[in-house]
Amino acid sequence: MKLIRYGEPGAEKPGLIAPDGMRRCLAAVIDDLAGENLSPDVFARLATLDHEALPVVDQDARWGPPVGRIGTFMCIGLNYADHAAETGAQVPAEPVLFMKSTGAVCGAFDDVIIPPGSQKSDWEVELGVVIGTRASYVSEEHALDHVAGYCVVNDLSERAYQLEGTGQWVKGKSCDTFGPIGPWLVTKDEVPDPQSLGLWLEVDGHRYQNGNTSTMVFGVAHLVSYISRHMTLRPGDVISTGTPPGVGLGQNPQVFLKPGQEMRLGIDRVGEQRQRTVDGATLRKA
Amino acid sequence: MKLIRYGEPGAEKPGLIAPDGMRRCLAAVIDDLAGENLSPDVFARLATLDHEALPVVDQDARWGPPVGRIGTFMCIGLNYADHAAETGAQVPAEPVLFMKSTGAVCGAFDDVIIPPGSQKSDWEVELGVVIGTRASYVSEEHALDHVAGYCVVNDLSERAYQLEGTGQWVKGKSCDTFGPIGPWLVTKDEVPDPQSLGLWLEVDGHRYQNGNTSTMVFGVAHLVSYISRHMTLRPGDVISTGTPPGVGLGQNPQVFLKPGQEMRLGIDRVGEQRQRTVDGATLRKA
Repeated sequence: MKLIRYGEPGAEKPGLIAPDGMRRCLAAVIDDLAGENLSPDVFARLATLDHEALPVVDQDARWGPPVGRIGTFMCIGLNYADHAAETGAQVPAEPVLFMKSTGAVCGAFDDVIIPPGSQKSDWEVELGVVIGTRASYVSEEHALDHVAGYCVVNDLSERAYQLEGTGQWVKGKSCDTFGPIGPWLVTKDEVPDPQSLGLWLEVDGHRYQNGNTSTMVFGVAHLVSYISRHMTLRPGDVISTGTPPGVGLGQNPQVFLKPGQEMRLGIDRVGEQRQRTVDGATLRKA
Repeated sequence: MKLIRYGEPGAEKPGLIAPDGMRRCLAAVIDDLAGENLSPDVFARLATLDHEALPVVDQDARWGPPVGRIGTFMCIGLNYADHAAETGAQVPAEPVLFMKSTGAVCGAFDDVIIPPGSQKSDWEVELGVVIGTRASYVSEEHALDHVAGYCVVNDLSERAYQLEGTGQWVKGKSCDTFGPIGPWLVTKDEVPDPQSLGLWLEVDGHRYQNGNTSTMVFGVAHLVSYISRHMTLRPGDVISTGTPPGVGLGQNPQVFLKPGQEMRLGIDRVGEQRQRTVDGATLRKA
């Protein structure tokens, strides 16, 4: 299934993509696509419904992030060997964890705000993993049992905030709209092998990123197991698994986002996003 | 006012400490002490109630964290000059931000779980700041307008996970129960000057930390303003503002927590916590 949330920010309703390609509403079946509703039991129940009998969603409705009440938005740094190389970093001996604020989460087609004064906003297409059931000290062998499904994440990053000041990466990773997720949550059964997915990103039609999850340093099962040994993962937590080569920071000369551009990004089987960049300074005056 | 939440984890109800010293229930007035209910309007309404007429809470009820649905649990590193010195770090030129997973949040008197195999679990008494209204690009002058109140935070830290592996601090900051908050949220009016509060922490009766918020490198108003220029702060976000000297990492020789110990910690005007440490390895076998 391809599960969605739609509507205005903070008031999204659950839905799905029916076989006829229409967005259809699940609000009469579940209150939200969040928390315990991401469990295998609920997904099994949703699968038995007659999807084409569900009410059609208004075509103009905004696409929200396909997971509500995200608790932890965990990210993995330098998880593709060739991306580590382009940023001048070593391939890490164990997963590099950092977090984005959940306040950065937005929909797959929402505008991305370039922060006022920012000169170094950058893109990162990533495979997002949505946790479906609690995971604490799980083995790599059983790790995928705790995964509800997958989504596309654009892990936007302000490189000056992230790398040039004092402190930890969170500062350059958590700006408003720096976490587009979606357009849908693809249930796990539709992605039999998460380690063989092409993923790519274009800015104004120029393809900067073109990779494959087969070159991840640490695969999805390893990551879920590893994180679960540092904290309990809960339904609705999202893990963004790192980006392949081709970020703006890695270009020669470096290239960063400007207002008025369009990003398109996608992952095989998982989906495709599109965002326009807008000037945060202009928004603040408005 | 001293506002509380009580009951089992995930099912806490709102309440307050009445003038008679009793915990009394607010569940008939507000659904939770979270989100928009942390606004000045709601607090003003709560202040007008006859607190001694509210139902008494069962004496045995667990003390939960006094804020529900925390979105971002932001922490400030090395924010007391003498603590920076004891850990061998420079005083930072701007605030060092890092995050804890909200999954680490627990109540002020809950047991703290020493992770299986952990040798370097450490304590940090900190002043917690609870955001009451949205703050985006706010000036230092207006920053405290967005604060609902204050609470005690124990920013527990596994130093090997935090500092000795690859990656960012989050790994050693987010273990389950590594974020006791409370026992109450003290509304801002009861803390006229957040920069003149004594704060201390004892383990088994030995006082390790003894500081004062007057020696913070960056004060509360500066921190709120600074963070709001990197991401929008939302009602229910919590900022833990750093710890004074006396952590285990800074002792000579170093001292870390073992199962079966008792921590007591407090902040003038804000409250006092007490936690017992328990062995995570034993819990996992049980």
